[in-house]
Amino acid sequence: MIQSPRGTRDFLPNDMERRRFYEGILRQTAQRSGFREIQTPIFEEAELFILRSGPNILNELYAFKDKGDRDLALRPEMTAPAIRSFVNNMSNDPKPIKIFYFGQCFRYERPQSGRYREFFQFGAEIIGTATPQTDAEVIATALEMIKALGLKEYKARIGHIGILRKELMSAGITAEKMPEVLQKLDKKLYEEAWPLMKAAGVSRSGAYAIFELTGTVGGANVLDKVPGEESEYLRQILSYILAMGIDAPEIDLGVVRGLDYYTGMVFEIEAPVLGAEKQICGGGSYTLSELFGGEKVFSTGFAVGFDRVLLALEKEGAKYPISRMDAYVIAASEDTTKKAFEIVGMLRRNGVSADIDLADRKMAKAMKYASSVGSKFVVIVGNEDLAKDSVTVRDMSSGEQKSVKITDLPAEIRGH
Amino acid sequence: MIQSPRGTRDFLPNDMERRRFYEGILRQTAQRSGFREIQTPIFEEAELFILRSGPNILNELYAFKDKGDRDLALRPEMTAPAIRSFVNNMSNDPKPIKIFYFGQCFRYERPQSGRYREFFQFGAEIIGTATPQTDAEVIATALEMIKALGLKEYKARIGHIGILRKELMSAGITAEKMPEVLQKLDKKLYEEAWPLMKAAGVSRSGAYAIFELTGTVGGANVLDKVPGEESEYLRQILSYILAMGIDAPEIDLGVVRGLDYYTGMVFEIEAPVLGAEKQICGGGSYTLSELFGGEKVFSTGFAVGFDRVLLALEKEGAKYPISRMDAYVIAASEDTTKKAFEIVGMLRRNGVSADIDLADRKMAKAMKYASSVGSKFVVIVGNEDLAKDSVTVRDMSSGEQKSVKITDLPAEIRGH
Repeated sequence: MIQSPRGTRDFLPNDMERRRFYEGILRQTAQRSGFREIQTPIFEEAELFILRSGPNILNELYAFKDKGDRDLALRPEMTAPAIRSFVNNMSNDPKPIKIFYFGQCFRYERPQSGRYREFFQFGAEIIGTATPQTDAEVIATALEMIKALGLKEYKARIGHIGILRKELMSAGITAEKMPEVLQKLDKKLYEEAWPLMKAAGVSRSGAYAIFELTGTVGGANVLDKVPGEESEYLRQILSYILAMGIDAPEIDLGVVRGLDYYTGMVFEIEAPVLGAEKQICGGGSYTLSELFGGEKVFSTGFAVGFDRVLLALEKEGAKYPISRMDAYVIAASEDTTKKAFEIVGMLRRNGVSADIDLADRKMAKAMKYASSVGSKFVVIVGNEDLAKDSVTVRDMSSGEQKSVKITDLPAEIRGH
Repeated sequence: MIQSPRGTRDFLPNDMERRRFYEGILRQTAQRSGFREIQTPIFEEAELFILRSGPNILNELYAFKDKGDRDLALRPEMTAPAIRSFVNNMSNDPKPIKIFYFGQCFRYERPQSGRYREFFQFGAEIIGTATPQTDAEVIATALEMIKALGLKEYKARIGHIGILRKELMSAGITAEKMPEVLQKLDKKLYEEAWPLMKAAGVSRSGAYAIFELTGTVGGANVLDKVPGEESEYLRQILSYILAMGIDAPEIDLGVVRGLDYYTGMVFEIEAPVLGAEKQICGGGSYTLSELFGGEKVFSTGFAVGFDRVLLALEKEGAKYPISRMDAYVIAASEDTTKKAFEIVGMLRRNGVSADIDLADRKMAKAMKYASSVGSKFVVIVGNEDLAKDSVTVRDMSSGEQKSVKITDLPAEIRGH
């Protein structure tokens, strides 16, 4: 029996109802904050992702050649495509440009809880302004989204990549060694970072001071320990977030993010309920456009791991509205079948969701199907009623039945 | 400069607003008729599509191997995945199962007007019943969708593959020659069909009669020419469609459809405004589940070419509602910036879509940006107003300005 490919999923009707509900909340929240949706292709030139993430990304890409021998890849993320699209289509639009996107991404890795080879991301970017207000707006939008989804427990942490870079540079780490060291520090792998730093001539005490720095966590006051423009910048961001009436994230100078294209503020949101794989959102300010052949333009953005957020909501027992069909129409006898179809057509034209027996079933079986699909009402079309231009309406939750004039049927059903 | 791959498209904010609007209409229409959404992966085992469409499909597939050396392919259509998912996940659910799906499909072919390598399909299937009512419900749903989209000019044609098959068989065409001949007849390539039929021993007059048959077009009465159960079946389908209050499609026994997995009724909807590439919807009844390792289950379904329908609507000059941002907040001076952020946060929490200057712009420039993004109102936050807990609201369409109490702001703006 053919199955869906490993690491991918089929979403059945109940899954999709839930996913579309939460997708809608993310979309509405973004739009309410002035972001507008874009959509880019499922695959891009592989080069695009190498330019953004470095050649190592190739190990995680679903890459293939088209018949023109071009190297293509299924997108592993959507920031690079969004900025590529900005460079191609939007570079002359008034700045800032506020966009969001939602869709499938693909990563070739061992499937595990909350991680799939086909996964869904919701992301947003503000392109063209580099100000504390811009960073604050991005973080505020991310936090409003998570809140709007109804997630109870989550925690946001904000840092500034510039602070750590500055310290590392003055300690003797060169620009080309920087990414490797930062990645170790990002994962708090001090034992692995130390030899790299030592080789670069960093003293034990210097390394210790830097490890300490990555452990700097707390309120705005912890920024006093690291005076400078970066700290002042973070203070500004926090003040704008607070002004918008949103709880400020915690300062955590250990937030580094995996990628070295970040230029300043970096932030993450996590859901403790998820345990080890708890990060549900990450972002920061960066420049990518110049790598793709455009002018250098500052951007700030974030991505929400849609599958992980849904997992977190599920673990928290979050409820979402389940839609049920309004009416299921059953012909009481063969000679009323046509009339039953007439009625189902009329109901639908009047905005009532309605279905009808398609299998010439007897009453009892049709009734059983109606309750199995969870219809609110059953409309029974029989000759006695029809003689009075009426049908029998059965409320499936109460079991009550009554005769209703056909002309009153839509109102009767919508009334509930 | 890196571009999007050939035959793919970036959809910018205005495009997406339009596409989401029409996608929503298709979704609502399907749900009103008792169909529920499913979603399958972007790629599947290549075998799935070969089983459905034959090995020739390989020439049109974006195929690749994963690192487990499995042959995968981006989906060229979504009927096979939907039925694969039914076999894997839904085969024990109460029948009929009514599902729909919407998403990207991929076909490796020369891009041309209305045809892309990444294109979008909306499809629906009824699985588990084989009755005239089922076929009528499918056709009715397709027609209601096209109507709901607002397309003015469209034409539906319905046929029965069984009628032509029967004639061809009795004329001497064997089962394995059948698909090839049908494909020629589907394209009305009589000159190419004739040699194949002649080789199979079909007489010139016999061939002529069959060519005539494929030209049989008109109302239900034309079915009198081809008595038999298939004609009776088509009459039944038409009667149920009419009962639902929907204009019956034209009978066209030349409707064959490309694929030989169809078992009975076949139908197509076309939009004349598109000229040569005018087909916007096609479907019919078929069986696929047994090819994928499941039991043989009869299904009826259709797919709508979303990109083509949108092209048709555009050519007909169809209008759709354009959403605009409610308010753009501007601080009149630097010392009111924080207050401006407080107000934008308050507006959003009250369901008002609102944006704010992120670039420390002077009033005139910020005003220019506000009108460039089409905001309905501009909210100016200045000290004089703030002294009276008020702000100045400017209606961007009339140019009128007035002072409004901050507490009344959401109601004032929503009032329009």
